[in-house]
Amino acid sequence: MKYNQYAYQKTSLDQAKKELASINFLPQNWQTLPFGELFAALVENSVAEAKTPAAKIAKLAEFAVDPQTSLKDFLQTDPTRLTSEQFYDVALQLLGYHPFYDYDLAAPIKFMNKQALPTVQSIDNSDQLVQAFYQLLNTRAKNGQTLIDNLAGKGYFTQFWGKHEFMFFNGKSLPVFDTSKVIREVVYVASDLDTDEDGQSDLMQVTIFRPAETNSGLKVPALYTACPYFGGIIDNAKENHSVDENLTDATAWTNPPYVAKPQVPAPKPGTENAEPTEEAVHKATYPLNEYLLARGFASVFAGAIGTRGSDGLRITGSPEETQAAKEVIEWLHGDRIAYTDRTRQHETKAFWCNRNIGMTGRSYLGTLQIAVATTGVAGLKTVVSEAAISSWYDYYREHGLVIAPGECQGEDMDKLAETCQSNLWDAGDRIKIYPKYAAEQKLLQTWQDRQTGQYSDFWEARNYRHHTDGIKCSWISVHGLNDWNVKPKNVYKIWQKVKNLPIKHHLFLHQGPHYNMNNLVSIDFTDLMNLWFCHELLEVDNQVDELMPPVLIQDNLHADKWHTEADWSDDLGQKVVYYPNDDGSLAKDGNGKAKLSFEDVGGSDFKAAKISDLDWEYKFIAGDEKWAKPSLRFESEEFIHPVTLVGRPEIHVRVSGSLPKGQLSVALVEKADRKRLTPTPKFLMRGGQELAYRFGTDTLQEFVPDKETKAKLITKAHMNLQNYQDMKRPSKIEANEFYDLTFKLQPTYYTMPVGSKLVLIIYSTDQGMTKRPLEHETYTIDLANTELTFSQK
Amino acid sequence: MKYNQYAYQKTSLDQAKKELASINFLPQNWQTLPFGELFAALVENSVAEAKTPAAKIAKLAEFAVDPQTSLKDFLQTDPTRLTSEQFYDVALQLLGYHPFYDYDLAAPIKFMNKQALPTVQSIDNSDQLVQAFYQLLNTRAKNGQTLIDNLAGKGYFTQFWGKHEFMFFNGKSLPVFDTSKVIREVVYVASDLDTDEDGQSDLMQVTIFRPAETNSGLKVPALYTACPYFGGIIDNAKENHSVDENLTDATAWTNPPYVAKPQVPAPKPGTENAEPTEEAVHKATYPLNEYLLARGFASVFAGAIGTRGSDGLRITGSPEETQAAKEVIEWLHGDRIAYTDRTRQHETKAFWCNRNIGMTGRSYLGTLQIAVATTGVAGLKTVVSEAAISSWYDYYREHGLVIAPGECQGEDMDKLAETCQSNLWDAGDRIKIYPKYAAEQKLLQTWQDRQTGQYSDFWEARNYRHHTDGIKCSWISVHGLNDWNVKPKNVYKIWQKVKNLPIKHHLFLHQGPHYNMNNLVSIDFTDLMNLWFCHELLEVDNQVDELMPPVLIQDNLHADKWHTEADWSDDLGQKVVYYPNDDGSLAKDGNGKAKLSFEDVGGSDFKAAKISDLDWEYKFIAGDEKWAKPSLRFESEEFIHPVTLVGRPEIHVRVSGSLPKGQLSVALVEKADRKRLTPTPKFLMRGGQELAYRFGTDTLQEFVPDKETKAKLITKAHMNLQNYQDMKRPSKIEANEFYDLTFKLQPTYYTMPVGSKLVLIIYSTDQGMTKRPLEHETYTIDLANTELTFSQK
Repeated sequence: MKYNQYAYQKTSLDQAKKELASINFLPQNWQTLPFGELFAALVENSVAEAKTPAAKIAKLAEFAVDPQTSLKDFLQTDPTRLTSEQFYDVALQLLGYHPFYDYDLAAPIKFMNKQALPTVQSIDNSDQLVQAFYQLLNTRAKNGQTLIDNLAGKGYFTQFWGKHEFMFFNGKSLPVFDTSKVIREVVYVASDLDTDEDGQSDLMQVTIFRPAETNSGLKVPALYTACPYFGGIIDNAKENHSVDENLTDATAWTNPPYVAKPQVPAPKPGTENAEPTEEAVHKATYPLNEYLLARGFASVFAGAIGTRGSDGLRITGSPEETQAAKEVIEWLHGDRIAYTDRTRQHETKAFWCNRNIGMTGRSYLGTLQIAVATTGVAGLKTVVSEAAISSWYDYYREHGLVIAPGECQGEDMDKLAETCQSNLWDAGDRIKIYPKYAAEQKLLQTWQDRQTGQYSDFWEARNYRHHTDGIKCSWISVHGLNDWNVKPKNVYKIWQKVKNLPIKHHLFLHQGPHYNMNNLVSIDFTDLMNLWFCHELLEVDNQVDELMPPVLIQDNLHADKWHTEADWSDDLGQKVVYYPNDDGSLAKDGNGKAKLSFEDVGGSDFKAAKISDLDWEYKFIAGDEKWAKPSLRFESEEFIHPVTLVGRPEIHVRVSGSLPKGQLSVALVEKADRKRLTPTPKFLMRGGQELAYRFGTDTLQEFVPDKETKAKLITKAHMNLQNYQDMKRPSKIEANEFYDLTFKLQPTYYTMPVGSKLVLIIYSTDQGMTKRPLEHETYTIDLANTELTFSQK
Repeated sequence: MKYNQYAYQKTSLDQAKKELASINFLPQNWQTLPFGELFAALVENSVAEAKTPAAKIAKLAEFAVDPQTSLKDFLQTDPTRLTSEQFYDVALQLLGYHPFYDYDLAAPIKFMNKQALPTVQSIDNSDQLVQAFYQLLNTRAKNGQTLIDNLAGKGYFTQFWGKHEFMFFNGKSLPVFDTSKVIREVVYVASDLDTDEDGQSDLMQVTIFRPAETNSGLKVPALYTACPYFGGIIDNAKENHSVDENLTDATAWTNPPYVAKPQVPAPKPGTENAEPTEEAVHKATYPLNEYLLARGFASVFAGAIGTRGSDGLRITGSPEETQAAKEVIEWLHGDRIAYTDRTRQHETKAFWCNRNIGMTGRSYLGTLQIAVATTGVAGLKTVVSEAAISSWYDYYREHGLVIAPGECQGEDMDKLAETCQSNLWDAGDRIKIYPKYAAEQKLLQTWQDRQTGQYSDFWEARNYRHHTDGIKCSWISVHGLNDWNVKPKNVYKIWQKVKNLPIKHHLFLHQGPHYNMNNLVSIDFTDLMNLWFCHELLEVDNQVDELMPPVLIQDNLHADKWHTEADWSDDLGQKVVYYPNDDGSLAKDGNGKAKLSFEDVGGSDFKAAKISDLDWEYKFIAGDEKWAKPSLRFESEEFIHPVTLVGRPEIHVRVSGSLPKGQLSVALVEKADRKRLTPTPKFLMRGGQELAYRFGTDTLQEFVPDKETKAKLITKAHMNLQNYQDMKRPSKIEANEFYDLTFKLQPTYYTMPVGSKLVLIIYSTDQGMTKRPLEHETYTIDLANTELTFSQK
């Protein structure tokens, strides 16, 4: 498997020597040392667990330079050069590989190449040895981390504890801060909101993890994670709305409004700076934050309004939620007041912050990055938004329909608000907040409008894409191309706006579902983030913009291949049009004339079968006879060259329904009996990554070939027939009349392998996402007026 | 679910006051404080995350004493007493429960009772309040830990860091040691063995985790885990022996010997005590050790001979292995030399050890406890041996047959030795050791004798039960009643010997497979271990022998019920005999006369079906038509009263085979369509237990009702027909002649619920355990001479 590396900064020999000396890795007398002794010294320094010269020397006997010779014996020959085989035999051991098991001591270079690890050709003098060792320290080890990070995990950098300053190596921050003394504290930021309408500004509990060195004057950046789940999750999944109901006439829609909550401006910050008096109980939930905390980046978590320890109401997706999340940055930047406890008696300041703030987090936590970024709040320099929602309509609705996130049937804004209203857990808070909360729930239930599924002012207020002009910070988006929770449209649509803004922007698309990518084998994402945050928040000149391509996309056939692209849009490819034919084929030269029908049976068979949404989906796309019945399918010939679908396919379809209402679904499927990648990455060496010295672990992972399957969903979309005229406004329709629908599918970047077929499926009820009507409806498709368009490359 | 508690020591009010004062929990002026203020102070002290009086007071607003009144408002009424409802409303919040979600603020006592949490009836004065609070601190919280342990996790005891002495609360050690400074070091103990025959005593890497306070004179006990996997695991499962082969004539047996390795006595300890020079790289793998480390018990791990960082050969199960494991204790006790590194230049001592050593660990790690205990080595005070092998013949063989541990078909002594020979991973070590290792593998492959499966001197030397007279330490065994890896016979047979020794002995039997039990909801095992080790290794007089019953057995129907027994043996019940009848029934009044046959087809169908061992087993015991064919089944009537099978059922069977060789299997199965417990405990609140302050976490778990199944295996056994005369010596047998076999099944403690049936299955090939012959054999059972005997209560 390839350990691709993007975050390695090419470094001159002089600079390498300087950096190696700065971390006490290069012996002071290295220029006068005989070659063999220098090599021994560098290997010894790499054995960080051995703490004395004698202990280090003793360890040399455990290495070998070829199949017969231990390093100890070899060094006794006073070598004056090394073959690259000798060097990499030892290097691979340092990188954590086991000779004889993982690689052949007789052929280390072959193995280095196979793993995509960099090598040098000759090591004929001390300079070349130093250069090779510098590169080796920055090479990714078997556990996915660089060797220098592995040394850190063994305590190499404790020698710098107490120095109280940032140190950098190859452009990235080193863990030179005392991880045993990290400060974990809680403060209460005063919002200008009064969502609980008690006449006082809402207080919001903010949790800070920061290097102890900040108490001695060090100023550090803050990585802020706005996390509505931080105080706890109220598990209400079993009380989700029923989706087993008929569609209703969408014209009953009344355009529910957005109604603002009252504001009660908090006092301006004063001069007091009391020490925080409460220790954090909750822990960081994201290893990347912990990794960076050890490297000097403070980690700040806040649930904000409605969450445990905070006042107020959770109002999911609302401008109030954005405001509350933003206000934490205002405090970090020195522009807002916070108190030591909820009695508001003593002000406390983020005196330790260098006023440069980045945001991190996935899903709802990524969403709030988009939200806050659009405010242009001072101090926010960059966001790394993972699997984020860019419009809440695109999370819970689609084209006039109620459409669930994958495996979340019946969830909605009210339920998510309840999930995060964790201040209800504390009885004292609950007694106070419950009546307001219950009233707000009622409003949400009305305004979210699960009857019609139409766009409205309620949703308009929850579409961050209208406010992208406010974005001033630099931007990274990360999304899984198989994310059926936060569907890829969310990242695609905001990317089309962000890419035109005068800000730095990057995009990573991996093959996962709703998932992080920071410890994959195939990409050094963690190192890239170190590089990025050093550049953005510590102003280190480290070439990150040259090293990190604008768009990196993981291949769906080979997990260890990443495509560098300049953009992600339809424009990456050329338009092709496919037509469904009367004989069930899907072809570029279509001449379909038939009107074909299928009878949708809603959720009846599905519920009787008691299978999961995902089970159904696989059987359905694979063409299982029972489940395929309520659908029309059109299948291409086998692809004889690989073709990549890019951007958002579009479907035009002329359809009639047997009722004066209807929902239409279309899916594109890749069909072939073959081994595809695992849906989630496989864990490799569980807990094998040390985030820092005695500071928690993470696990290397990667998508790997799975057992054979018959088909894979590429993309899909759903649409309400009553929106045939206008996606934002329902029309009356008649039963058995034809209407023309045109709509786009979720965006993709999917390579059809040779021998696979493309299948277009037209259906109605999507068991995992749409409502599941109780009544049957017959849909008829006019093939002569139906076509599929997409970009391919 | 019941949070049963055994480790709570009844404590007088005076003692409670003394202990509460000693940990600064009771205000110094408590006797003069008004009742309400005292209550406030005790609640405030329980909010360990609030670090100042003001912060603590602010927190009171988050609690409630009834559905309408916050604690803050209640305290303003200057209360002079508390109803038990008021007290436990607050108490349950402190224990981590959420009012309105977990319990009803109007009925807290009902909830306390449901959870089996202790309550007091009236709290009318300060003394009663203090007593109630003392009990509350020692009550198990929602996460399974006591409240005092939860406070510890929030840093309550950091106030005692630097005191450098043990502190106890309710008879158990408190985490008052500075967990941020734990010393993690490596030393090299010199064995008297020279298993690699290089003329030098083998050095063994020993890893020590100890409180930093030991560097200031504190002496602490050592919990030693002899762990052959500590240096790493060589994954060779895919290279296991094939079991798809015919039986061979067992009389070819030649009684393979045990051959000792050379000894090269190490130097006696001298006077030098150099500081260790190598930091530990590996981490403790067992949360209970970490928990106790924070409470002052050093944790010592050693892989010993053959493992990474050590010299020598792994010789699984051998007296040499026992000796090597024991020698680590000799070093801990001051009786053996260790060096700072493998160059043997500087001696280093376990100066920090109070010379009281306990052993912990599961599986192979538990096995080595039995091994070392039999040596009677000085310093070893107690073992807590979990899921341990007491005779290696009972792990890889049974009654003259090669019988695999569950899900380990084809594994054997040689393969396990290879798995643990992790010094092969370091090229320098490998170059040296490989020829010796390869030769030893050949010897093991010959001597383990997979052809005949017979007992021999090789196995005799690997049966620890012959040496129980040497045991001097106290004893705890823990085993899963559903452990089909290390089968329960291992613990049962050694228990029958241990229980008659003049040592303290206890036995825990849980419902798990090959599993730990230290964080179950239904029993406070971790607290019991704290109590036990304080008593055994720190000589604290804490009534542990009265509190901990001799035998505790988890019920197989209700996971939160534990049976207290005086013993575990056939004598717990009364003998009953069941007979198989011609009509397929199994009854006490048997009159079977038929000779019934089945044709064993070996592994052919199984391999064709490509299902797992466990899939097969379930289908087989459930009576699936296809899989049940090669067997005879006899089914009792439904039980109309619950009956518990105890001890080791015995089968007598008269059988003939169509070949002059054969293997017979018998199983007892409980049959009924019902929900049984999950095979492994379900995780509850993952990571929700803090082992100490910022010192790792563990997860509460428990067996819970699972989806409905048709049948459950109670016990089984296998026997070679050629051992009909003597279990330790094969005889020639003739095809189609009848032979009388008598053998015992694995021990059990299994309650047959009302409505279930007992099924006796007689078969031959057990796909998951026996060899799977390529040839077919017809077995005939003479029912008139077949009977099943067991004890029931």
